[in-house]
Amino acid sequence: MILSVGQNVSSKNTITVESIEKYAEITGDYNPIHFDREFAKTSIFGERIAHGMLSAGYISALIGMKLPGKGTVYLKQEINFLLPVKVGDEITTTVTIEECINSQKGIYRLRTVCVNQKDQMVVTGEAIVKWKEQK
Amino acid sequence: MILSVGQNVSSKNTITVESIEKYAEITGDYNPIHFDREFAKTSIFGERIAHGMLSAGYISALIGMKLPGKGTVYLKQEINFLLPVKVGDEITTTVTIEECINSQKGIYRLRTVCVNQKDQMVVTGEAIVKWKEQK
Repeated sequence: MILSVGQNVSSKNTITVESIEKYAEITGDYNPIHFDREFAKTSIFGERIAHGMLSAGYISALIGMKLPGKGTVYLKQEINFLLPVKVGDEITTTVTIEECINSQKGIYRLRTVCVNQKDQMVVTGEAIVKWKEQK
Repeated sequence: MILSVGQNVSSKNTITVESIEKYAEITGDYNPIHFDREFAKTSIFGERIAHGMLSAGYISALIGMKLPGKGTVYLKQEINFLLPVKVGDEITTTVTIEECINSQKGIYRLRTVCVNQKDQMVVTGEAIVKWKEQK
């Protein structure tokens, strides 16, 4: 496989109550904005939202499994949380090769975006990864 | 509560096989570096490692629950993955108020660091959050 600028992959994930609960179990993140319906009503979001880092997990999954995939070393991720993600939202995550920073070392810059079912960008950012094809 | 520069909180989490498995269930990240012992042996890490984004989850938990805590809106997170995190590692995550960017809007810059039991920094980075005390 050769990585070329513009190459991209996408995945689709639906946010469920179960995924929010499991995420909290693992990370200890029981922020009431995710769990307390009454508290969430008083927040700027008006209802319970998913952990922003859950969307970051979809990005990481695509990078590690698809593009570049096997053998990728994750060096850096920048994440902008633009809009809240809610239960029932369908999140399409796309990773695109933006730049080969150092071809000898296999360092690449990727654009990482999550869009909801209304075509609104909920998360944007970029990743830096190291990758060499494994023979 | 008033947020002041230098203020910090920490948490401690032990990486377990269970947390890695649950994280994969939620995100779909079954990258063989986390699950395939034989494949992992051939990688630069020499053994299976945890998802880097799992440590990012500890950061997010501290920010959302402790500092600033309730009412925080996560705007941005930058994460540098410096060293692999392995099963059994004890990760101490620390969030420190670095700067008040805009006191009127309640925008703050936080330093976010994860250190392992050998006192090695495994993850560094910073977050931008919006926070106002809820009365």
